[in-house]
Amino acid sequence: MECQLTIDLTDQKKEKPAHDKLAFGVHFTDHMFVMDYTEGKGWHDPRIEPYSPLTIDPAAMVFHYGQAVFEGLKAYRNQEGEVRLFRPDQNFKRLNRSLTRLDMPTVDEAFMVEALKKLVSVEKEWIPTAEGTSLYIRPFVIATEACLGVRASHTYKLIILLSPVGAYYASGMKPVKIHVENSYVRAVRGGTGNAKTAGNYAGSLKAQTEAHEKGYEQVLWLDAIETKYIEEVGSMNVFFKVNGEAWTPMLNGSILEGITRDSTIQLLKAWGVNVVEKRISVEELFQAYQNGELEEAFGTGTAAVISPIGEMSWNGNKMVINGAKTGELTQKLYDTMTGIQYGVVEDEFGWSVKVTE
Amino acid sequence: MECQLTIDLTDQKKEKPAHDKLAFGVHFTDHMFVMDYTEGKGWHDPRIEPYSPLTIDPAAMVFHYGQAVFEGLKAYRNQEGEVRLFRPDQNFKRLNRSLTRLDMPTVDEAFMVEALKKLVSVEKEWIPTAEGTSLYIRPFVIATEACLGVRASHTYKLIILLSPVGAYYASGMKPVKIHVENSYVRAVRGGTGNAKTAGNYAGSLKAQTEAHEKGYEQVLWLDAIETKYIEEVGSMNVFFKVNGEAWTPMLNGSILEGITRDSTIQLLKAWGVNVVEKRISVEELFQAYQNGELEEAFGTGTAAVISPIGEMSWNGNKMVINGAKTGELTQKLYDTMTGIQYGVVEDEFGWSVKVTE
Repeated sequence: MECQLTIDLTDQKKEKPAHDKLAFGVHFTDHMFVMDYTEGKGWHDPRIEPYSPLTIDPAAMVFHYGQAVFEGLKAYRNQEGEVRLFRPDQNFKRLNRSLTRLDMPTVDEAFMVEALKKLVSVEKEWIPTAEGTSLYIRPFVIATEACLGVRASHTYKLIILLSPVGAYYASGMKPVKIHVENSYVRAVRGGTGNAKTAGNYAGSLKAQTEAHEKGYEQVLWLDAIETKYIEEVGSMNVFFKVNGEAWTPMLNGSILEGITRDSTIQLLKAWGVNVVEKRISVEELFQAYQNGELEEAFGTGTAAVISPIGEMSWNGNKMVINGAKTGELTQKLYDTMTGIQYGVVEDEFGWSVKVTE
Repeated sequence: MECQLTIDLTDQKKEKPAHDKLAFGVHFTDHMFVMDYTEGKGWHDPRIEPYSPLTIDPAAMVFHYGQAVFEGLKAYRNQEGEVRLFRPDQNFKRLNRSLTRLDMPTVDEAFMVEALKKLVSVEKEWIPTAEGTSLYIRPFVIATEACLGVRASHTYKLIILLSPVGAYYASGMKPVKIHVENSYVRAVRGGTGNAKTAGNYAGSLKAQTEAHEKGYEQVLWLDAIETKYIEEVGSMNVFFKVNGEAWTPMLNGSILEGITRDSTIQLLKAWGVNVVEKRISVEELFQAYQNGELEEAFGTGTAAVISPIGEMSWNGNKMVINGAKTGELTQKLYDTMTGIQYGVVEDEFGWSVKVTE
């Protein structure tokens, strides 16, 4: 990526929302990053420009054949005014894996990290500083060619949006109730489950809506082949503390390779916790529950970081985990991870990347 | 749908492409149909307006979580100037099934058929009349709310585009070479395989590209559970003539319920051919091939109508079907189906719908 990043700043700045009025992904900053791809020419014209609607042909392939991949990460600003990103290189590595699976052109990862740092730096006043708040970052790539033939597009747009977001747990961590889903599936071996692509989310909404109607906050996805092994929870990876060990489903091609998942595994290992990545059947987990060995459960993902699970319902069996309270290990992981993210806990892993100003 | 369809005609008409310059889905007519959905208000403001780019927020949910479904059908104009649609009610029925699976709001099917007839009537001069040419119709629905929360959108747009298309077989029917895909899968039970949603197509492109590189025109998809049973070919349903019978994979939740598939079954039954809808393993098909009982093979879909298969490659085994020539039954189906579509063969099924002028 030899081309120069151009910057066009707006003179019509929006009013920033109050810290206590922030929700998730509804407010956007004054600028966005945009870059175009044209077959034969490659990625070109990287630029920071005023946030504005796209003008896009109704025949653009993204609307019809779904070539759309995305990433999610956050920028954190602490009391000292320092701004940090968390493992942004991993997000662009994964973006490239997703792009490859969807038959879309890859990007220069190092250039993208630098471009993102520049964008965040331009928008640093938008990063809220109240506890637990942050700036959510959404890079995404969409197919833009106006053509209805079923094939990969010849043109694409990569965009990065920034959105100030409130604390995920505004009134403290609250364990969620999970429904183990037996009918709908999220992904299957040979499909797109390990790519962060729009279609995976589209297919999951119906199950989520039905779970909400039954009084659950999230769905626990099982494998599509045997409807037996645990895959993910909602749009997060999942961990269980069983008899002192940390279990998590092994990566199998249909599970998203979460960056918070990987960070969690590294932290647990550094603390001397035995981490077991394996196929976990609900049956085996229920057995552990009945034996009193299922001590904690939590999801991992960028939005919530660590999300405690208080209750799981499976075929009429109810598992109440740790008295529906946040477990000790779950809390320690949350505190350490967010501490590293805000730069208030020592980062021995080199995960935290300072945005130079 | 009580609201009135409004019509805003353009005074800047485009030049129509020459009949011999038509490709698939690259030229679009002067107008399009648009209708909006807002939660609490329902579908509103149906209108025919000049074809123009959409102005859409980069945070629109379709770009991120893939709520996008579509349909495909055609309008045909014969030498007498009569304009016909083929079973349009079935397309809007299926659109509603797709919308439901993707947690999107359904539409009034009868209203949509009337609106489509009106749109086609406005654009009737765009329908080419040369043999095999037609006007491809693409209704689609996309999520438009600007929000990054993972949930169903609260606003949508339904659009119908029209595109004059050339003869699929410009130089006569040509049997295609098919690669039986063992690694990638298209869909799985509990997923979105029987919905016509963008994500299904996005996931299929990589396999299609790799098949092209190996010299095949299309991919034959196997089931995701056992990688053993035949599902679809490319983006078509598939039929085999075996020992005088017509076999086709039974609908199982992961196969698209093709309207051409259904019409083919009805025609075959009317002709006294025994139609067997069942699970078909490649193994069983290969056995039939070795016994000399695999007589014909073809795909069915809106774009090609009937697409003969001349060769199939499976794990190094090559099956050359009917000497790589179009079979007799395949040709008869094509001739009859297109004859009904153009209004030149008697339509005893009531499939052909005249667009009143």
